[in-house]
Amino acid sequence: MSKETDRIFHDHRGGKLSVELTRPLVSRDDLSIAYTPGVAEVCKAIADDPALAAEYTWTSNLVAVITDGTAVLGLGDIGPRAAMPVMEGKAALFKKFANVDAVPICLDTTDPDEIVETVARLAPSFGGINLEDISAPRCFDIEARLDAALDIPVFHDDQHGTAIVVLAALRNATRLTGRKFADLRVVVVGAGAAGVAVTNMLNSAGIGEVTVCDSRGIIHTDRDDLTPVKRELADSTNAGGLTGDVERALRGADVLVGVSGARLEPSVIEHMADDAIVFALANPVPEIDPEAARNRASIVATGRSDLPNQINNVLAFPGVFRGALDAKSRSITPAMTLAASEAIAGIVTEDLAADYIVPSPLDPRVAPAVSRAVAQAAKNQTEAEARQHLPVQLD
Amino acid sequence: MSKETDRIFHDHRGGKLSVELTRPLVSRDDLSIAYTPGVAEVCKAIADDPALAAEYTWTSNLVAVITDGTAVLGLGDIGPRAAMPVMEGKAALFKKFANVDAVPICLDTTDPDEIVETVARLAPSFGGINLEDISAPRCFDIEARLDAALDIPVFHDDQHGTAIVVLAALRNATRLTGRKFADLRVVVVGAGAAGVAVTNMLNSAGIGEVTVCDSRGIIHTDRDDLTPVKRELADSTNAGGLTGDVERALRGADVLVGVSGARLEPSVIEHMADDAIVFALANPVPEIDPEAARNRASIVATGRSDLPNQINNVLAFPGVFRGALDAKSRSITPAMTLAASEAIAGIVTEDLAADYIVPSPLDPRVAPAVSRAVAQAAKNQTEAEARQHLPVQLD
Repeated sequence: MSKETDRIFHDHRGGKLSVELTRPLVSRDDLSIAYTPGVAEVCKAIADDPALAAEYTWTSNLVAVITDGTAVLGLGDIGPRAAMPVMEGKAALFKKFANVDAVPICLDTTDPDEIVETVARLAPSFGGINLEDISAPRCFDIEARLDAALDIPVFHDDQHGTAIVVLAALRNATRLTGRKFADLRVVVVGAGAAGVAVTNMLNSAGIGEVTVCDSRGIIHTDRDDLTPVKRELADSTNAGGLTGDVERALRGADVLVGVSGARLEPSVIEHMADDAIVFALANPVPEIDPEAARNRASIVATGRSDLPNQINNVLAFPGVFRGALDAKSRSITPAMTLAASEAIAGIVTEDLAADYIVPSPLDPRVAPAVSRAVAQAAKNQTEAEARQHLPVQLD
Repeated sequence: MSKETDRIFHDHRGGKLSVELTRPLVSRDDLSIAYTPGVAEVCKAIADDPALAAEYTWTSNLVAVITDGTAVLGLGDIGPRAAMPVMEGKAALFKKFANVDAVPICLDTTDPDEIVETVARLAPSFGGINLEDISAPRCFDIEARLDAALDIPVFHDDQHGTAIVVLAALRNATRLTGRKFADLRVVVVGAGAAGVAVTNMLNSAGIGEVTVCDSRGIIHTDRDDLTPVKRELADSTNAGGLTGDVERALRGADVLVGVSGARLEPSVIEHMADDAIVFALANPVPEIDPEAARNRASIVATGRSDLPNQINNVLAFPGVFRGALDAKSRSITPAMTLAASEAIAGIVTEDLAADYIVPSPLDPRVAPAVSRAVAQAAKNQTEAEARQHLPVQLD
């Protein structure tokens, strides 16, 4: 074992989380309040008014980090037990950055119906559901069904967390290179969980033209090998009707967003536009060698912590849930994720530079800014909905 | 609101639990160890050898406190949300007394099949399952099926926790009154979760004669209104073939164990044996007024914290799980619960008295003694099984 591997295992021994008491439990009196007979008063109050559960239990600050272990990091389908260290890490980040309590739940099923029904049965125990490392395309359906079924926020971080941070980075890269979103041509390489969500978010944000590639090349409407989700992508992207491989897609493009885990030859970016922007986000090995990318592109970002411009979901998910929980939002809407993205981009102001388009994952300003923006977006939305419904009610 | 109610709600605001990090997460280095890329090493190791999950995740110290909210305290079926304050309290006691991490899970289903399949799907996330406040007779089947299906300990505290502490109290009451288990006539009033488990445990411990009463009187083999579980009770108890009401059962009996929530007239104990022992455990109102019981019985115990001899499950469950987790036991066997009971009784030595037959719920010696005894029983059993299997393997 190397010294570094040694430290990794040492620091994981016994796990990374514990459950603690928020108040001391010392005297017989404490016991009769926290437990019987006192606790019965609180139970009766919640039975009479379920909304009080948010006030008198820990659920209003508690997120379940739920996986089936099918798409863990770049490791693939390693099962629920082997996924646990990642989910514990995620829960630790929730606490560290946004004071959100989080409990990892690794499920012993990969069947989408079973996952949906299991999570729905757990829902009274939590204030939010963070889906994690569930493979595509199963993840899309699972998230959509849970979001529809539950009255608490459901968020698949591999999709939306990535999309939020990519859009934030792109916002600043665009500013730095003097472009506008409406004029950009973006190529997304990868049509899994992250690729689909990034593409949808780029479309919502008003990017001029988005083209998506999967392992078989450019996604276009004439392909007959597309899953339902990729068919939707074909319909909503590639306005130019391109066909061919990644290199063809990138010809003249302004931006490459790699969220695939594929390995690309540096030559594929040769014919991109001037001042090209390359986000090669596969971890631990970026799609294109970052050194080579820097020779051709003006701005390069990766998912790696040892390189500048680390595009990491931790910039998004703690603040997103903090904001959603604070606003008592029943879901996490596109308006809220867009607000999160703008808040992240907004942290980088006059110090914006080619090697500083996103804040550091450790920047303590990020989560509070994101949570404020997300909570505000949730409130605006609730008010807008209330206004919208008002005439109907008065009619 | 009274001042006391006021304090109860004040002390429950925001809940009683939090999730905390076991190690600081401060530097970029910490982040790359606890999360990507470092954590991947640990995931790969567990994928190769699932047994390592116990070493490098928090699951080996983690118990799920699971309820469906159907039999909460004396409140009945109040649902999963209203049950949460009790489950949080339970988790707090696990931590406080035995340093066991516990997460409350309140399920949005009361269907036994759904409960079993849901808990089985959650199992990779936990090192043990504490079932709580699930109504009888559903609880028997749910526990048995989960115990058979899972390779981690499953324990329905309302059954076995109560039985352990009742037997401990009875051991000391018997000593104090100079009797022997084999000569005792015990009447158990109540044939729910606690009643069934207490009866089975008393039988295992060698009590001379046990008779059980439900709301319709003495359970005997000629009754045609018995559930399958009560039919088993009829077969394994009431050797004298008694019929009639509670008062009839108690005529000449040495011990009354009330685990019913029923209200009994003090006159029912009038014709018990001399030096009668009365455990009236319904909470918050004992089956028989304790003051009246003391006029007739030599030893009286209740479930109340404001009276002597409080028979409370907290004496058992923290240490039982601590011991089972320490011994890496795959289940909690009768030998382990018997060991727990004897350890609790053994705390009270020369200070044994009519108003001190069980230790205080706050006595810090209890959980360590119970966990040692339970772990030792688990090991003895494993060794005995290994010896038993040895000849077969050598054959």
